[in-house]
Amino acid sequence: MFDKILIANRGEIALRIIRTCREMGIKTVAVYSTADEKSLHVKFADEAVCIGPPAAKDSYLKIPRIIAAAEITDAKAIHPGYGFLAENAEFSRICEEHNIKFIGPSPKMIDTMGNKSMARENMQKYGVPTIPGSTGIITSPEQAKKIAAEIGYPVIFKASAGGGGRGMRICSDESEIEKQLVAARNESEACFGSAEIYLEKFIVEPRHVEIQILGDRHGQVVHFGERDCSMQRRHQKMLEESPSPGMTPELREKMGQAAVNAAETIHYEGAGTIEFLLDRDKNFYFMEMNTRIQVEHPVTEEVTNEDLIQRQIEVAAGLPIQKKKLKMRGHAIECRINAEDPKFNFRPSAGKVKAFHLPGGHSVRVDTHVYAGYDVPPFYDSMIAKLIVSAPDRKQAIHRMKRALNEFVIEGIQTNIPYQLQLMDDPNFIAGKFDTKYLENQFKFNPDPT
Amino acid sequence: MFDKILIANRGEIALRIIRTCREMGIKTVAVYSTADEKSLHVKFADEAVCIGPPAAKDSYLKIPRIIAAAEITDAKAIHPGYGFLAENAEFSRICEEHNIKFIGPSPKMIDTMGNKSMARENMQKYGVPTIPGSTGIITSPEQAKKIAAEIGYPVIFKASAGGGGRGMRICSDESEIEKQLVAARNESEACFGSAEIYLEKFIVEPRHVEIQILGDRHGQVVHFGERDCSMQRRHQKMLEESPSPGMTPELREKMGQAAVNAAETIHYEGAGTIEFLLDRDKNFYFMEMNTRIQVEHPVTEEVTNEDLIQRQIEVAAGLPIQKKKLKMRGHAIECRINAEDPKFNFRPSAGKVKAFHLPGGHSVRVDTHVYAGYDVPPFYDSMIAKLIVSAPDRKQAIHRMKRALNEFVIEGIQTNIPYQLQLMDDPNFIAGKFDTKYLENQFKFNPDPT
Repeated sequence: MFDKILIANRGEIALRIIRTCREMGIKTVAVYSTADEKSLHVKFADEAVCIGPPAAKDSYLKIPRIIAAAEITDAKAIHPGYGFLAENAEFSRICEEHNIKFIGPSPKMIDTMGNKSMARENMQKYGVPTIPGSTGIITSPEQAKKIAAEIGYPVIFKASAGGGGRGMRICSDESEIEKQLVAARNESEACFGSAEIYLEKFIVEPRHVEIQILGDRHGQVVHFGERDCSMQRRHQKMLEESPSPGMTPELREKMGQAAVNAAETIHYEGAGTIEFLLDRDKNFYFMEMNTRIQVEHPVTEEVTNEDLIQRQIEVAAGLPIQKKKLKMRGHAIECRINAEDPKFNFRPSAGKVKAFHLPGGHSVRVDTHVYAGYDVPPFYDSMIAKLIVSAPDRKQAIHRMKRALNEFVIEGIQTNIPYQLQLMDDPNFIAGKFDTKYLENQFKFNPDPT
Repeated sequence: MFDKILIANRGEIALRIIRTCREMGIKTVAVYSTADEKSLHVKFADEAVCIGPPAAKDSYLKIPRIIAAAEITDAKAIHPGYGFLAENAEFSRICEEHNIKFIGPSPKMIDTMGNKSMARENMQKYGVPTIPGSTGIITSPEQAKKIAAEIGYPVIFKASAGGGGRGMRICSDESEIEKQLVAARNESEACFGSAEIYLEKFIVEPRHVEIQILGDRHGQVVHFGERDCSMQRRHQKMLEESPSPGMTPELREKMGQAAVNAAETIHYEGAGTIEFLLDRDKNFYFMEMNTRIQVEHPVTEEVTNEDLIQRQIEVAAGLPIQKKKLKMRGHAIECRINAEDPKFNFRPSAGKVKAFHLPGGHSVRVDTHVYAGYDVPPFYDSMIAKLIVSAPDRKQAIHRMKRALNEFVIEGIQTNIPYQLQLMDDPNFIAGKFDTKYLENQFKFNPDPT
């Protein structure tokens, strides 16, 4: 086992990783920008190295500085968390070259799975259902029209290098193909430096359901059940839960097995997530694979009683997975608590946190790097905490979440807690009736409840 | 179901009960002494009524004021928590007379089980193993000597009305009987207003293992497995865990069944705990029954995923228990965090809490009424928080507890966190090798670790 790990990240995920390292008896090195000097991940790590100014490109994304920090502190492995360098194949390769274990998959695997159209082709090859569409890059509007006619409208253009909803365009009939293909190409070029676009059938009322998997270097892969992440706003997940409402053991077995088979075939190592779209008729289609730990991993931890960061570190150190039957207990929900003002279109709300009181009690978990007196810097992601509850069933979990949200005191900045609270009272959410567009298109936040 | 419950208590347990009421959609009334005006249980309740000055006898023990508060606020039930009036048969009776449901057993049951020698006689009758000893009150030294000769030394005198170690005296041979009987009687008279003493075999190297039970008014009783509370200092529990180290499924089944049988026979209603002494050879003996929820109930909640306060309220409202097979998952440990200074013989340390930062993350639970800026009053119990962790096994739970204790920031007052932290590194604790005298007689706290 590693005796020291550097965490190439900040915020709650850096703290999350430090916590598990402490429990495993592994020393930790934090890296931080000057904006994060007073963050908890710096206080709780055994060592901390400043790697640059606030802008992420000059600190958390600056590979040479992170490698230098690992060499200075003699850290034998780097955990990248999520975001920043977590899915950067070059970083993984440079770690390898410096004889530092990157806690994640190989550069080749990141490349393969990071390219969406390549990942999709691979998945088809391995028998995982994918959304009908072009088998490769769209080369002309005529080709797109031909494929769309075969698979039926509506269809959607997507950027091969894409993510976060950028480079995507929906066409409801043939007349829109030319215009939208140009728009998708331009946006993809601008955002990702690549104009490669593919075409897919557009799934109506889809749910986002993902399978957490873990592979070791001995060729074993296991899954930890699913998470439902359909509650999104502008392609940003707001709330996640496990199990997915309406999931059946049979469907879980089928999705889980599809995910495991695919990961086994490619000899996947590390923690990963296979994202599926689930349609109204419970057909599921491969969407993409994330080759990292995800923000929403705690809901899986709470229902399975597994520490996924620990498992990730173990397989990175070469330990074989101890296979056992998946056991899920109860229901877990995570609300992302963001420093943003839902009354003003979720505009970010940085600044000093004057009072900070965490909810507590039975089956309430908080992952946060924030404390009273902390200054939320304006340079990074707006998420300041994750509130996770679990309960014997979904209904009780919703009641517990509502209770916990009500207890959460954050003064000095605005947060989305009022929004999450209203969601807990929403009849459609309570009934489990929602798709990935629900928050954007149907749920109405009341900025001034009486 | 009740629509409003008054909580006749303070501190973390009052907050604990409010939390469950909120999740159940039940309104809550807090009562408070003038010393607790700024306590969280007052802030989080729907209504709050001041019932008197700081001294408990003039507030939290003042039955007429509590009944008046319930009548003014139209609360249909009273939850007594633990301590104060929780096992006061008169209070239970007065609630009945005022048509307010006391969330706990009937006055008769409290009387029966509150009298230790009567409880012991009852248990013997119902086939629960009890420690060999006098079948009733000791009337003379001669009688005591005769019984002691039969059951073998060492023996112990105990106060019928006793608790907390007072009125207890051990005799290692016949020569000590007379002196110790007088001492036990005097102490019992002084502490409890009764000189009634009984005699028992003194169990060497005993563990304190208790079974959590719940009975409904339809005659059903279930148990939720055991808790090990052997880690005590001066008869005050410091740390509790579930399962008990070294417990086997067979022994759990046997102890659980003994507890359930006894409770069924007496038609026990409500939550209760049957405390056993477990000797080296895994023989168990009935010690006493507590007719209330206990401080350490969260460790049971974490391993069983049950909300015991919810269950308690449900059976008080007349709902039948839904029987299901007991399922325990993993291991849970609770450390009591007390405002006391382990460097100075655990002297109480009241005062203003300047900084207060809770540990968090995976499977860490905190139950506390304290926040930054809170004044710990000197009038009550020194417990200011309960830190509970769970993990797949005991070893990992100990690592997690150590990590969480290290994260807990409490400034402005002294706490026993340094003591609990050293316990997490103690080889005997880690090996599960301890009895109820371990903390007092063997464990050495180092006040100045380097």
